[in-house]
Amino acid sequence: MSHQRVLVYGGKGALGSALVQSFKSRGYWVLSVGDNEKADAFVSVPKECSTIQDQEKHVLSEVARKLPEGGKLVGILCVAGGWAGGNASKDTMVASADLMMRQSVWPALIAARLAALHLAPTGLLQFTGAAAAVSGTPGMIGYGLAKAAVHQLTASLAGTKSGLPSGATVIALLPATLDTPMNRKWMPKADVSGWTSLSWISDLLHSFVSNPESRPESGTLIKLETANGETTTVFSKI
Amino acid sequence: MSHQRVLVYGGKGALGSALVQSFKSRGYWVLSVGDNEKADAFVSVPKECSTIQDQEKHVLSEVARKLPEGGKLVGILCVAGGWAGGNASKDTMVASADLMMRQSVWPALIAARLAALHLAPTGLLQFTGAAAAVSGTPGMIGYGLAKAAVHQLTASLAGTKSGLPSGATVIALLPATLDTPMNRKWMPKADVSGWTSLSWISDLLHSFVSNPESRPESGTLIKLETANGETTTVFSKI
Repeated sequence: MSHQRVLVYGGKGALGSALVQSFKSRGYWVLSVGDNEKADAFVSVPKECSTIQDQEKHVLSEVARKLPEGGKLVGILCVAGGWAGGNASKDTMVASADLMMRQSVWPALIAARLAALHLAPTGLLQFTGAAAAVSGTPGMIGYGLAKAAVHQLTASLAGTKSGLPSGATVIALLPATLDTPMNRKWMPKADVSGWTSLSWISDLLHSFVSNPESRPESGTLIKLETANGETTTVFSKI
Repeated sequence: MSHQRVLVYGGKGALGSALVQSFKSRGYWVLSVGDNEKADAFVSVPKECSTIQDQEKHVLSEVARKLPEGGKLVGILCVAGGWAGGNASKDTMVASADLMMRQSVWPALIAARLAALHLAPTGLLQFTGAAAAVSGTPGMIGYGLAKAAVHQLTASLAGTKSGLPSGATVIALLPATLDTPMNRKWMPKADVSGWTSLSWISDLLHSFVSNPESRPESGTLIKLETANGETTTVFSKI
């Protein structure tokens, strides 16, 4: 089972880097979308890709070039994302929503195309949603809207004739707050015992990738609830 | 009560044109976003607005210029939209999703900004979602994702501190198929008795705009179900 291949979309970020290292340490061949020198290969996403079509074209061609001939991916883990607040009274609201679509919806859509092209028949496609976005998010309008789009995409891709391999599983993780260096920096007084650790997520995703039996049904939104340093999962669907 | 003001976002389309004419005939002053000579005033959305920020800047400044000094809108009816199919195996899926975001999410976000700036204290902001997008839409991935984003936006704007006037109501209509000339052209053999008429929607929205008591709770998604030429509403929330 060595040298199975996974792709981490957003391998430059905190969670993405943790996933690259975790899968590497378990013997996987890891391709990162987003600069990451520790991956076996990576694809840069240049800033000059100003449209989603440009970005798709670049990522699709580079991934095809870096994947070993005929190589299928057992997992595509899309953890690219970002956060921005703002309600409708802010004159930055539309710009923030645009940024959230670029940071969350664009990678998810391109990852869906990668899955249609390169995912193994029983592979895993994982997206990153947000626990808050299953209902309204008045103080972070763009963020909630972009994550809700990702949740619905998860349901679409789990449906019949979605264009993914028929035995594949699509899920979204819905974290609240991740325990990242950035979050510790910006919320120095927060109670981190309610934050979800990156290694916990890495372990969960390794289990899902390596053992299809351990996965919930395709289309499941997996809310991550962490309290007193313990994380539990709550399954739902849209 | 004459000369109350409404804005129709997407007043160039079939439903938008019907709304412009309906509200005009009832004595309202109507501003259309989208070319419509029958409105009291209209704002063109030039094709050269290639980013949502450009489009927002243009629409916000033009609407402010065309609204009578200090004039508030009792209704902002956002019916701009479009449709495109395609599952993840289509090499046009990402381009279609981009188009759907431009046609459905951009207008909704800009309408939300217009509401924050110009909606009367007990005004109505209406969006257009889609009945199908409350669950997965594997054969029309971009369409479902964009409409799901609009549904979540509806919930966000109905929340406290969303930036809208506190007495305003935000709803989304979720049609299945509208009885438009375009749909009759493209689906000539369909049973149109299951399609929702534009005049029925115009009457419903006039009732909601003119009589706040007739509205469902803010944040409601209103599914339109038409059978044998009769339309009924089903209320839900995300």
